[in-house]
Amino acid sequence: MKTIAIDAMGGDNAPEAIVEGVNQALAEFSDIEVQLYGDESKIKQYLKATERVTIVHTEEKINSDDEPVKAIRRKKKASMVLAAQAVKDTKADAVISAGNTGALLAAGLFVIGRIKGVDRPGLMSTLPTTDGKGYDMLDLGANAENTPKHLHQYATLGSFYAKNVRGIANPRVGLLNNGTEATKGDPLHKDTYALLEEDKSLHFVGNVEARDLMNGVADVVVTDGFTGNAVLKTMEGTALNIMGSLKSSIQSGGFRAKLGALLLKNSLYQLKDTMDYTRAGGAVLFGLKAPVVKCHGSSDAQAVFYTIKQVRTMLETKVVEQLVDAFTVED
Amino acid sequence: MKTIAIDAMGGDNAPEAIVEGVNQALAEFSDIEVQLYGDESKIKQYLKATERVTIVHTEEKINSDDEPVKAIRRKKKASMVLAAQAVKDTKADAVISAGNTGALLAAGLFVIGRIKGVDRPGLMSTLPTTDGKGYDMLDLGANAENTPKHLHQYATLGSFYAKNVRGIANPRVGLLNNGTEATKGDPLHKDTYALLEEDKSLHFVGNVEARDLMNGVADVVVTDGFTGNAVLKTMEGTALNIMGSLKSSIQSGGFRAKLGALLLKNSLYQLKDTMDYTRAGGAVLFGLKAPVVKCHGSSDAQAVFYTIKQVRTMLETKVVEQLVDAFTVED
Repeated sequence: MKTIAIDAMGGDNAPEAIVEGVNQALAEFSDIEVQLYGDESKIKQYLKATERVTIVHTEEKINSDDEPVKAIRRKKKASMVLAAQAVKDTKADAVISAGNTGALLAAGLFVIGRIKGVDRPGLMSTLPTTDGKGYDMLDLGANAENTPKHLHQYATLGSFYAKNVRGIANPRVGLLNNGTEATKGDPLHKDTYALLEEDKSLHFVGNVEARDLMNGVADVVVTDGFTGNAVLKTMEGTALNIMGSLKSSIQSGGFRAKLGALLLKNSLYQLKDTMDYTRAGGAVLFGLKAPVVKCHGSSDAQAVFYTIKQVRTMLETKVVEQLVDAFTVED
Repeated sequence: MKTIAIDAMGGDNAPEAIVEGVNQALAEFSDIEVQLYGDESKIKQYLKATERVTIVHTEEKINSDDEPVKAIRRKKKASMVLAAQAVKDTKADAVISAGNTGALLAAGLFVIGRIKGVDRPGLMSTLPTTDGKGYDMLDLGANAENTPKHLHQYATLGSFYAKNVRGIANPRVGLLNNGTEATKGDPLHKDTYALLEEDKSLHFVGNVEARDLMNGVADVVVTDGFTGNAVLKTMEGTALNIMGSLKSSIQSGGFRAKLGALLLKNSLYQLKDTMDYTRAGGAVLFGLKAPVVKCHGSSDAQAVFYTIKQVRTMLETKVVEQLVDAFTVED
């Protein structure tokens, strides 16, 4: 049995969406147990499951505008902190939250802790490609600065994840750079290139450009936290704005446009599905002693369900234990 | 009369698209003169204009896969190099090319030269916002590395451009960062924030995030060349992939979807127009002693026309001369 500690109070739709996602997951997977941290009476309003679920009541919670490190240190009884503490105390195997990202990173680092040998855990998501296969990118912004050694570690972390959780036999690792030639980039990227090329345990395919990410040029894309954060936010902003512009030009287009949109409904849903990567789960703060996964703040029950599914696969494949071994050998 | 030197042989559609853009521009603007550099017989096939245009024949040209700096040094008679040389020799006021970007940057730096006091000219484009107003972003990748001083200079350069060429009275300058709070980012971005806040000649509005660029959070967005390049390529890749996915889901959607698309034609064109920023002209290598402007490699005649229009405005408003004065005072 795998035990997952879930912050029921994090995110825009908490606790409703969180608890409904848990209901679905418990019905689907008979080998998991869930601990829900948060306001018991509110949680109970939505909780249908009666077995393999416990509520740990607390009234404190971390808000989205709390300063992360301070919040973790001062709000010792916050639902997110208690969930992380349960992992630390080996009462749970993994933690999920849709709350304050910075605070979850801090809880992961300071409460659960890094795998020995991993210098800077990175934030990793599976992002969409047009062929539906996706790729894992890290660091998406856990760190504002990285060294070549960190980026080399991200290549290893991402490869283990792609192999274990996404079932890709020999994941192609690309380094996000400002050109595909080996000589491209600033010293950070040139030095990282050399490290990745040298490491025969990786299937390094060279530099990749941001323009080609959605075409599936690599299964794992390695980048520093500053660039990764900018690229992720650019994708989100561009996709949202294009979809928004299309919607408003349909709405202002009169009857003809509305009829057209109706006939195109399936195609538009298909497009939305391609861009939607919640089925791959949440963003993993990867490199910690246990799975710590962030659901998007606006997650609905389905997104929460898929994140639980993702965490279950991470636990089943023992990807974190494998990393512990890999980094022990390296030291 | 303003004289514009144009590389007729650069880009995927050269010389046809280049020369046809020139035909349109000469018909529209009576105060410009064009010098076309390239293969005379090929240029003549498309050239309709007979006045205010001269052809400078050369058979040499720079290819898209030539190593930029070497190409500039070795191919002294290449159409792009001769066009830049004409500006250097004060036979022309500005240069336009749709060819090898790196080579044009090198020609700008080594043949035309920097404005005194500008350390690292930046590549700047006017990019689309959903409200159609756009924003100027630099550096989009002329440099792989930048210092806070460079970024401060980009804020000044971008403000002069937004004011003069786009007619924005008091351009809002934003610093692209990994969060909007003043304390965000790596040392480069923190130090740049301090410089921008101190400079009372700028209308600095603080940090901006990549997610909000298309919403028009600033008129000028300052970033280092590595991040700017990644963000620009992410925008291009995301937009192209979404439009491509929409197109293929319409094509595979049968008669119903095709009829829907037909009814939606105007809305789809409107969307395409919103995303299309060729009307704002090409990418300026800004900070040089004369306007040096890169048209996209895939430019058609219309894109070339708009780039000529943009260069004409730069010359008319004497934005480069103003920058020379501004940077002289600062020294």
